[in-house]
Amino acid sequence: MKSFKIALAQFSPHIGNLEANAQKMLEQANEAKKQNADLIIFPELSSIGYPAEDLLLRPSLTKRTQQVFEQLKTVKDIVMVFGFVNQTEDGQRYNAAAVMKDGQVLGVYNKQNLPNYSVFDEKRYFTEGHQHLVFEYLGHKFGVLICEDVWSLSTVQQLAQLNVETALVLNASPYEVGKPQHRVETMSALAKQMNLNLVYANQVGGQDDLIFDGTSFVIAKNGSVVLQAESFKESLYFAEYEAEQQAFKANALPPALDTMAEIYQSLVMATRDYVQRSGFPGVILGLSGGIDSALTLAIAADAIGADKVQAVMMPYTYTAQISVKDAAEQAKSMGVTFGIAEINPIVNSFMQTLYPFFGNSPADATEENLQARARGTLLMGLSNKFGNLVLSTGNKSELAVGYCTLYGDMVGGFSVLKDVYKTIVFELAKYRNSISDKPVIPERVITRPPSAELRPDQKDQDSLPPYDVLDAILYAYIEEDMSQDDIIAKGFDAEVVAKVIRLVDFNEYKRRQGAIGPRISSRAFSRERRYPIMNGWKAGI
Amino acid sequence: MKSFKIALAQFSPHIGNLEANAQKMLEQANEAKKQNADLIIFPELSSIGYPAEDLLLRPSLTKRTQQVFEQLKTVKDIVMVFGFVNQTEDGQRYNAAAVMKDGQVLGVYNKQNLPNYSVFDEKRYFTEGHQHLVFEYLGHKFGVLICEDVWSLSTVQQLAQLNVETALVLNASPYEVGKPQHRVETMSALAKQMNLNLVYANQVGGQDDLIFDGTSFVIAKNGSVVLQAESFKESLYFAEYEAEQQAFKANALPPALDTMAEIYQSLVMATRDYVQRSGFPGVILGLSGGIDSALTLAIAADAIGADKVQAVMMPYTYTAQISVKDAAEQAKSMGVTFGIAEINPIVNSFMQTLYPFFGNSPADATEENLQARARGTLLMGLSNKFGNLVLSTGNKSELAVGYCTLYGDMVGGFSVLKDVYKTIVFELAKYRNSISDKPVIPERVITRPPSAELRPDQKDQDSLPPYDVLDAILYAYIEEDMSQDDIIAKGFDAEVVAKVIRLVDFNEYKRRQGAIGPRISSRAFSRERRYPIMNGWKAGI
Repeated sequence: MKSFKIALAQFSPHIGNLEANAQKMLEQANEAKKQNADLIIFPELSSIGYPAEDLLLRPSLTKRTQQVFEQLKTVKDIVMVFGFVNQTEDGQRYNAAAVMKDGQVLGVYNKQNLPNYSVFDEKRYFTEGHQHLVFEYLGHKFGVLICEDVWSLSTVQQLAQLNVETALVLNASPYEVGKPQHRVETMSALAKQMNLNLVYANQVGGQDDLIFDGTSFVIAKNGSVVLQAESFKESLYFAEYEAEQQAFKANALPPALDTMAEIYQSLVMATRDYVQRSGFPGVILGLSGGIDSALTLAIAADAIGADKVQAVMMPYTYTAQISVKDAAEQAKSMGVTFGIAEINPIVNSFMQTLYPFFGNSPADATEENLQARARGTLLMGLSNKFGNLVLSTGNKSELAVGYCTLYGDMVGGFSVLKDVYKTIVFELAKYRNSISDKPVIPERVITRPPSAELRPDQKDQDSLPPYDVLDAILYAYIEEDMSQDDIIAKGFDAEVVAKVIRLVDFNEYKRRQGAIGPRISSRAFSRERRYPIMNGWKAGI
Repeated sequence: MKSFKIALAQFSPHIGNLEANAQKMLEQANEAKKQNADLIIFPELSSIGYPAEDLLLRPSLTKRTQQVFEQLKTVKDIVMVFGFVNQTEDGQRYNAAAVMKDGQVLGVYNKQNLPNYSVFDEKRYFTEGHQHLVFEYLGHKFGVLICEDVWSLSTVQQLAQLNVETALVLNASPYEVGKPQHRVETMSALAKQMNLNLVYANQVGGQDDLIFDGTSFVIAKNGSVVLQAESFKESLYFAEYEAEQQAFKANALPPALDTMAEIYQSLVMATRDYVQRSGFPGVILGLSGGIDSALTLAIAADAIGADKVQAVMMPYTYTAQISVKDAAEQAKSMGVTFGIAEINPIVNSFMQTLYPFFGNSPADATEENLQARARGTLLMGLSNKFGNLVLSTGNKSELAVGYCTLYGDMVGGFSVLKDVYKTIVFELAKYRNSISDKPVIPERVITRPPSAELRPDQKDQDSLPPYDVLDAILYAYIEEDMSQDDIIAKGFDAEVVAKVIRLVDFNEYKRRQGAIGPRISSRAFSRERRYPIMNGWKAGI
């Protein structure tokens, strides 16, 4: 029995770019070796990244994976445990981990439990493995598990029965609110129950609409957390096993994040990764004087720097002067580029062109949508000309009920608040103001009654129930899958509930054409909540 | 042994509307009984429709399914074999078929083979069954299979070994080009090999981007097709089994459709079902004088009637006079509502508003996109005001390489040609002209070199390779999953191939925000070809 040191690579892969990922793994392994680590563990499928979706079906993946092994062969004197796609000669494809030392593959483990629910589609791509992998190294017995495996009691039990002392767990476990804490708690109880050390390395970074928080950890067999990585940061961590104590050495843990800090940081990382990995020089957004765009602006500036953020206020007849003032004030205090573009002439030219068709038909949502679409087209024009990514600013409550304009305020490549209910938008705005000396979001933006400003004196609450009521109904219907009757039975107004549910069901077509945005809930639209557009399901029971 | 009569309900369910589907099943059963049928078979999951996606996860589905059984109990004197979701007390959910007579459930079969590839996600929802269902009725031994089951040789073999004479197969088998013929041929060989009569009832109708062609059939144990339903039509068919011959009576078969007829009819049905089931009074589209919008217009008029179709020509400075003329001519000859809306004032107002931002920067794609977005906004304005659905007119070749404007020509709720390559668009246009006395698409629209008319004298071929070359490269890359190197090795210009592949990979973000459209290939974007947007996969090998 010896003392040893394990490096946990809380790694952010570039999906599909096997060569770059292997290069980074190689560098991290060499860095770990320099710091006297004996073993380095990477996240699940670290060579291709998670989720690679149908890239996993491309025929050349076998060849590319071989090249990864070639690249990694140059690493010496450290055991590497990393994720790869194992395509066997009988035509099976496995979500696998390799144990490699000095260019030799010492063992391969095929994931046994393939999640195929929520955001996961692993049965589309992989065959289940049926064998454990156990190896001795430095007088210590290690086992390997991959992500979902560690949530299957019987799988972990079987491994523990092989007298394994430490399970090396490769993960790509996506974030949702509270998940980092939930993971640690569950795994702590498991380690204790199984009398097993758990070394848990998780992917970090944003990938399309998925956020990987990292929050990797080491939990000792007595259930105590001896190491925990910071969430939302790519980094290398080291856990030392002391032969004398036969235990991992305890490290200081990072302070727990409160919920709003956790969500805020998750959105900042997701936005940064999307913008940077997609190669955009910066972002642009429409700043309305309302809270959604104000918060989106703050997140964008925190993500990529104020100098790379352009905000445009696009007032119309119905825009309040204080909206323009608040927008300008925020832009100035944050130091982002700010411009104003009046849309009246554009809306007028649309109205004149449409007059022969419309005649004197009364104004309705059509005219409101023209305003939103004039703004959307302006933003896209600026994006096309200067290359910045348009950030969409709508929130989950709006998208749920379709209180947004397709090709209007919905334009953009990334929808930062897509999975954030309006009531949480308020909380996040207050949180953001609380962490800097002076508020970055003007106080009045938070306290004014929300308005789309598409009609004279319009308030959101003219069309929708108050946001606390709306969000409670939406949460029950969407996240909790409750029926209309059950939600009414909780005490909500029957008519209001019926209307909200009708709107949610009807607006699937809008959401389907919306930009992707980071998932923070356990029932995010599209990737996770997969509903047909043509849909005769009737609410009620 | 008796003679008997089986009714095949080539049934078009309304997804999620169990009550309406049960009502229709009840009516069809009563109609079949009136025509002296002894048994009626419906498609897979006929009570909820296929695919119901995450509606399958809603808790009240159990209760709703019970109500379906209650409704169907009133049917007397005929055996009904229909599809339903079987949720058992141990929490499992099966894709199941019930055999019911006079209100009694005589047996339940749980599908054994769950497809989880291509457009299928059945392992997200269902558990695999492990038991066959065999029943005797009228002195004849029947077995039940569901869709994918009949493509598993071992499953069919097991059933045949139980001395079953006739397999009743419930299906929701989606259309792709050539699939109806392929199905019949494969099943004919299977029936012969297994010495088994096959009664194959398939769902018909459009559901979002999936087309179900129907083409139900009965194949005798000698492999001969004794009955075949017309494709793309909801109807009730009858197969008579003659005791004396111990065989199904042969019926006249419908004439085989040639490929273009098959595709055309599939698009007409898909468009009709989407418009009607979504409750739109009609459709509107931008008619440019080009072939894509011309074909879309013809399909729309054939689908819902010319009186429900509105076409708008939206010329700009770069629009050729013959484009306006051809558009007007087609609209007139087809009898659709036609209007002209010049977009110059709108584009000018955008340019003026953007001038302070753009200054004298040279014109680029930005200005072209403004034209497309002015048109998109006009169409949406007309749609909002009068309630017609906007049909998007882009084809698969354009969408593949991003030769289309997001929020511009991509606006719309249904993208009729989304899965149709440009070379097939030409074929379909010629086909449509060939089946009526006088051409519905002006000849010049077919023969003119395609142009987006967004710049002076622009031709598609200025930016893209000729369409026959482009489509061949796209087909190899998308449908055949070939690598860049392999496509070049086929003899295509290396630079052209690299450019096309780069464009396909880069434009995933555009396609992701595009409207749904009917799938006719085996590699339709989004539903079937599921690629990440942020994607570091490098073409090449």
